[in-house]
Amino acid sequence: MPGSSHHHPPRPADEQRRFEEAMHELWEDRVTFNKTLGLKIESFALPEPRVRFDMRPELVGHYLYGRLHGGVTSSVLDATGGFALMCAIADKHRDEPPEQVMLRFTRMGTIDLRIDFLRQGIGERFYAAARVTRLGGRIGSVQMTLTNETGLLIATGAASYVIS
Amino acid sequence: MPGSSHHHPPRPADEQRRFEEAMHELWEDRVTFNKTLGLKIESFALPEPRVRFDMRPELVGHYLYGRLHGGVTSSVLDATGGFALMCAIADKHRDEPPEQVMLRFTRMGTIDLRIDFLRQGIGERFYAAARVTRLGGRIGSVQMTLTNETGLLIATGAASYVIS
Amino acid sequence: MPGSSHHHPPRPADEQRRFEEAMHELWEDRVTFNKTLGLKIESFALPEPRVRFDMRPELVGHYLYGRLHGGVTSSVLDATGGFALMCAIADKHRDEPPEQVMLRFTRMGTIDLRIDFLRQGIGERFYAAARVTRLGGRIGSVQMTLTNETGLLIATGAASYVIS
Amino acid sequence: MPGSSHHHPPRPADEQRRFEEAMHELWEDRVTFNKTLGLKIESFALPEPRVRFDMRPELVGHYLYGRLHGGVTSSVLDATGGFALMCAIADKHRDEPPEQVMLRFTRMGTIDLRIDFLRQGIGERFYAAARVTRLGGRIGSVQMTLTNETGLLIATGAASYVIS
Repeated sequence: MPGSSHHHPPRPADEQRRFEEAMHELWEDRVTFNKTLGLKIESFALPEPRVRFDMRPELVGHYLYGRLHGGVTSSVLDATGGFALMCAIADKHRDEPPEQVMLRFTRMGTIDLRIDFLRQGIGERFYAAARVTRLGGRIGSVQMTLTNETGLLIATGAASYVIS
Repeated sequence: MPGSSHHHPPRPADEQRRFEEAMHELWEDRVTFNKTLGLKIESFALPEPRVRFDMRPELVGHYLYGRLHGGVTSSVLDATGGFALMCAIADKHRDEPPEQVMLRFTRMGTIDLRIDFLRQGIGERFYAAARVTRLGGRIGSVQMTLTNETGLLIATGAASYVIS
Repeated sequence: MPGSSHHHPPRPADEQRRFEEAMHELWEDRVTFNKTLGLKIESFALPEPRVRFDMRPELVGHYLYGRLHGGVTSSVLDATGGFALMCAIADKHRDEPPEQVMLRFTRMGTIDLRIDFLRQGIGERFYAAARVTRLGGRIGSVQMTLTNETGLLIATGAASYVIS
Repeated sequence: MPGSSHHHPPRPADEQRRFEEAMHELWEDRVTFNKTLGLKIESFALPEPRVRFDMRPELVGHYLYGRLHGGVTSSVLDATGGFALMCAIADKHRDEPPEQVMLRFTRMGTIDLRIDFLRQGIGERFYAAARVTRLGGRIGSVQMTLTNETGLLIATGAASYVIS
């Protein structure tokens, strides 16, 4: 967990920059469905990394209401939980070069996911944030939230991931 | 639940056909994100209505692996659970004309959702099926499965919906 | 949600005292399984009401390890989520006498529950806290945490409740 | 998964008997909380091992209604999911002596759990059954059901377990 990281020096600035550049390319472009959703990394900062996306016609449920489809909410929170876990793993292994850390992500996978749909997904821009509640050697647990540009809480989520 | 329905005569064939045509239009075209996913209704038949969709590049996770993105799995199972509940509601109210039943769906919403990702989403065509485990006056509960064209179980889900 | 409550004067002190006495009796004694678990109300204070219980031999899993059985964790978090929702409902209806508010609870029920088991349930005293994330007319959503006397986070939970 | 097991000869009858005796002792007596709940193993038979327990005053929610407390339902389904996974692991490793298989269980733990409360827990005797949907090297997934002596479906569950 982030807390444990404070015993070690932070990753060198140039390595952190290389890590973030690699993550933008991997997560926003190479994960095709993230691109379909229009997900962008907003912040890598622990304990609560954040992503954002803009409302688009392709993302709505019934065309009359213009609200986010529940599947978009689920997809974004699953992806954001995985992203936060990647940030926590990169922090835990800050002694490793970015390329080596990125290799760790190829073994990650979502075990299961819960989403609570609290309010209608109405807004122009949405922000998803996630906090890692457990970072073990085999299992990671994360809690996620989705809010709109006014700060309204639209959904929460919890997910478990297998790490290696 | 379907069981209870056998006490009443089935919906007249012409009304059932009108209901199914209206559902194809609503669920496959007007629910924009279902169209983004390419979801098609495969069967309205209780106790396990089914939908299908074909693998497409936009639906994959990392472009190197060509597996379904977890968010696609979540989206499809959420949508399929809601579809099965619509079929059960239409069956429960088979004395009502299709137009009246369709109005009931405008008040439906997913309360929460759980997805278990069991195996990698590899395949050319995928089938999602759902069974209603509770159809109360206020709450509906549904269990869902996702398989590929070989019958491999890729994911399971459970969701609760508010009905009215 | 608590926020909305600040527009109205708080419940008169004597009524709040009567409400809290009635809740202690109902929740700690009349809900038999809460008594089996040894649950005690620690705080009624929104936004995060709290309960506590002490480790006892009957609550452990394998007798060699002396850790809380997962079922105890699930039971406590489910009960605590319901308790927090009762506190939020009492706050929302603070214009009603306690007796009338208590009647509302007879119609409440858990729709579904998720528990994440993060760390082993080791400790002498445990505290469960819960926050209401949605208080609608029909559905309530709550997030829960379980910690031990050292503040270690042992488990988190999320649950949906039907209110009336 | 059970399917894979048919490639190998079954465990010798005397070893299976020793395994079942050891499981009765471990699961019904040494797991203290299972004893508190009164859980008994009904069947070890894959693909759906079963357990049972009788209604008792200590297990009810509000004393006026005499229904199972939700926490009992959660506890029983969590325990039953773990039991079914133990049976599947014993079947997968049927070439190992029971004592060695039992050692594997000391490393098992529930990662997370979902319970859907479908109907009131009314009855004199309850049966919980579980099916393993994934038995990997690190993660096991199980789906559970709770019914009463009339066969009424009271609750369903899904859980993920870390295996080793």
